[in-house]
Amino acid sequence: MSTKQPGSWLQLKRVVRFGDTDPAGVIHFHQLFRWSHEGWEESLQLFGLPAAEVFPGASKTDPAPPIALPIVHCQADFLSPIKTADNLSVQLSPERIDLSSFVVRTQFFRGSEEVANSVLHHLAINAQTRKRCDLPVGICRWLEASSLYLGVQPV
Amino acid sequence: MSTKQPGSWLQLKRVVRFGDTDPAGVIHFHQLFRWSHEGWEESLQLFGLPAAEVFPGASKTDPAPPIALPIVHCQADFLSPIKTADNLSVQLSPERIDLSSFVVRTQFFRGSEEVANSVLHHLAINAQTRKRCDLPVGICRWLEASSLYLGVQPV
Amino acid sequence: MSTKQPGSWLQLKRVVRFGDTDPAGVIHFHQLFRWSHEGWEESLQLFGLPAAEVFPGASKTDPAPPIALPIVHCQADFLSPIKTADNLSVQLSPERIDLSSFVVRTQFFRGSEEVANSVLHHLAINAQTRKRCDLPVGICRWLEASSLYLGVQPV
Amino acid sequence: MSTKQPGSWLQLKRVVRFGDTDPAGVIHFHQLFRWSHEGWEESLQLFGLPAAEVFPGASKTDPAPPIALPIVHCQADFLSPIKTADNLSVQLSPERIDLSSFVVRTQFFRGSEEVANSVLHHLAINAQTRKRCDLPVGICRWLEASSLYLGVQPV
Repeated sequence: MSTKQPGSWLQLKRVVRFGDTDPAGVIHFHQLFRWSHEGWEESLQLFGLPAAEVFPGASKTDPAPPIALPIVHCQADFLSPIKTADNLSVQLSPERIDLSSFVVRTQFFRGSEEVANSVLHHLAINAQTRKRCDLPVGICRWLEASSLYLGVQPV
Repeated sequence: MSTKQPGSWLQLKRVVRFGDTDPAGVIHFHQLFRWSHEGWEESLQLFGLPAAEVFPGASKTDPAPPIALPIVHCQADFLSPIKTADNLSVQLSPERIDLSSFVVRTQFFRGSEEVANSVLHHLAINAQTRKRCDLPVGICRWLEASSLYLGVQPV
Repeated sequence: MSTKQPGSWLQLKRVVRFGDTDPAGVIHFHQLFRWSHEGWEESLQLFGLPAAEVFPGASKTDPAPPIALPIVHCQADFLSPIKTADNLSVQLSPERIDLSSFVVRTQFFRGSEEVANSVLHHLAINAQTRKRCDLPVGICRWLEASSLYLGVQPV
Repeated sequence: MSTKQPGSWLQLKRVVRFGDTDPAGVIHFHQLFRWSHEGWEESLQLFGLPAAEVFPGASKTDPAPPIALPIVHCQADFLSPIKTADNLSVQLSPERIDLSSFVVRTQFFRGSEEVANSVLHHLAINAQTRKRCDLPVGICRWLEASSLYLGVQPV
């Protein structure tokens, strides 16, 4: 488990790069989902959860983790134009939904202004049978620590 | 306006390519939004609406169109694994929301099975002032023709 | 094997989409490599080679193909600005290099003007040991048919 | 100009994320070019050159910079499999070619092993006329400082 200050794994930074934007001069909308997923990965890493426990294809993953975590729903709101070189603060608010699923809410701020947010809804399934199953232990620890930090009562 | 058969501009095809998928062996979720946007562009093209009337940066766009159509909300549901080389049928159902906004609902089918769907919500704004404005005339024609075809009463 | 006219699997079409371009109003350079790889996949499909014989993760691939074809080198030249809605003709010129590798040269034309080109250099390796091995039989057939069509003496 | 230690703007870090990889379990090749361009942008930022001086569409760019820097050639070599969660060191070696062009060579290391490298060749053009012109002053300073640090004689 991370020895960093409480909740530090939920507060990230991101600089918008040129290739994230389109000829309208603002972020091309679906890049926000790439950022959201990468933010989730960075959060697990900062928390101390090895990628090989969660992601197939990670270094030292052999065999692949027995549980897959596909996204079954996602959504995003765009509140203000996001441009190249914007310095964004990224705030994650994960929440367990039930024994086999969780959401990661992500808010993107430029200074104190929220410019966009997203929700990724993950479901735990057995990677072989693709049947719904319980969340992996490491993900449960991350969800619990996050909910404690966020002042949410864990399920 | 298109001389093709009614509604042909709302029924597209897409083959899933290797780079759309990730080490879990299925579509990397946010690619669906790229497909949805490209489907919208292809639909306008099939309908006969020049890209230069809608998109900044299109060939022969000079100056850029006065009205921009940013996405203010989007969402997607993933119903079944989508894999490399899947042949998907893509069904668009655009709908006007009010004078300055519309949604494009897109359903992705493999055979008769719906495997995913998405919603893109566009808002019309003045490209200079970024204030809300009426939808461009060409988009209105496309929305109206689509709603007639889909059996929906246009606004 | 394809029953289409000779070489039809080497001549493709591509329309440039808004999300392929950046605030400079032209293609964001690395999208060309996505197009090149997708063009290669489409060429194999048109030729009649099932994706499941070549790509891990394709539908009905179980287990994965024993031979992987990673790209070990690639390059591209950009000759003229490529913009949203450009209709491009895509010409592939595959060539076997030796028993275990081949290149796919791809030229992109707008009308008669070549606007960009790329080279992808693939190496055949055993997917388990990652040692160099002979090219898969299906790829050899595609290379041979292509070289005959292109008037190149096959190796 | 940066007050950081000499050459610090040429030595970056990058963690490979799940969406960068494909069902072969390794980086999908063209993501390397995204990393290379983002590395170049990060280097300019660390050096102290405002994005608004270089990139159209950057915050506070109004009007767009008079000089555009399109990529006219690029290439990459892949030396070893790159997997999710790999911690890469990224070493940039920019070099001026002549008064109107430069290359950025980028090497990617995992520990002491070089796993990939790339070259981006940029040309300076007048953004309106698209005629070749001299490199912008800020880019010249960055090239000169980099070449001094790298022990290369500046042109």
